Amino acid sequence: MSLSPLIDQLMVALRCLPGVGPKSAQRMALHLPERDRERGRRLAQALEQAIERVGSCRLCRTFSENELCPTCASERRDRSLLCVVESPADVVAIESGTHFQGRFFVLMGHLSPLDGIGPRDLGLDELASRLDGGEVREIVLATGTTPEGQATAHYIGEMARARGVRATRIAYGVPLGGELEFVDGSTLALALNGRQEL
Amino acid sequence: MSLSPLIDQLMVALRCLPGVGPKSAQRMALHLPERDRERGRRLAQALEQAIERVGSCRLCRTFSENELCPTCASERRDRSLLCVVESPADVVAIESGTHFQGRFFVLMGHLSPLDGIGPRDLGLDELASRLDGGEVREIVLATGTTPEGQATAHYIGEMARARGVRATRIAYGVPLGGELEFVDGSTLALALNGRQEL
Repeated sequence: MSLSPLIDQLMVALRCLPGVGPKSAQRMALHLPERDRERGRRLAQALEQAIERVGSCRLCRTFSENELCPTCASERRDRSLLCVVESPADVVAIESGTHFQGRFFVLMGHLSPLDGIGPRDLGLDELASRLDGGEVREIVLATGTTPEGQATAHYIGEMARARGVRATRIAYGVPLGGELEFVDGSTLALALNGRQEL
Repeated sequence: MSLSPLIDQLMVALRCLPGVGPKSAQRMALHLPERDRERGRRLAQALEQAIERVGSCRLCRTFSENELCPTCASERRDRSLLCVVESPADVVAIESGTHFQGRFFVLMGHLSPLDGIGPRDLGLDELASRLDGGEVREIVLATGTTPEGQATAHYIGEMARARGVRATRIAYGVPLGGELEFVDGSTLALALNGRQEL
């Protein structure tokens, strides 16, 4: 059933948002012209501006409107510590949840030979020359715990060691507040293997 | 933590969509520039076009780009049967789920004196003159089951009766496939009161 071709077109377009299925797209498309034309207009503008003007940080590849993102531009961050993550969302998570004081390198993905994503697509050439620069002492691998994330961490770890840079991986284990009985077996096994002296 | 002012601005703007909280807004804002610039551009355009060009049907008040919506413009729909609903989404639900062959009248809300929404805001003047026209024989009240929806149905029912037009209310009861034990008490009471001869 079609209400109006433009509303239908908006419904289809909204489906490009992650987590938006047909039902929520319909709800959103019918909500905006009904209640929120002004805010809808602002959303259209914000989308256009972000898409046209947000590029990548020259150093760490995260989203940035300027040549350098605020983290890379800051003089206060520890240049000897580099945290490698898969996406800008990971940067946000670490920045808002921890007191990490080093810098980041954002792969914008992970190694995935089946999808044709190799080291060059992840900017590993740039990472290598940065490691060659000698400023970085330790590289913290915070890629995902998926097989691809693991393989990527392993690959970059080898790269770092070959250049005499210390490579570490963030710890695996039972999440805080997690009840043991609800934690999956693989995580429990990793938590046991990674046990530490009290 | 701020990645880029434009991404932050997009995140705030996305919150105007129904059902989008801070976490999903962040996910959406980081997804579009990463994967889907082309589709994001199309979304911005679709939003703008829908907001600028979608107006109201002159007869039934639902969203329409033309003076009349397809349902009101159709010669095949039964002019003597008029279904009153609260929103365009209700029209979509009835059109796609039933074989209703009459026309609609969309209130775009319900009576709510506390919010200053009275009969005039719901287009009840227009509805009254349409009922006076003599074409409508029965008005089906399909407003919500909230107290406001009920009060609105009651009000319009009185309007219709005063003009000699039959007014009916859609049936309440246990939904199909619903297990009795999970149906709330008020619905069950209504289902019992509304029991019909087999």
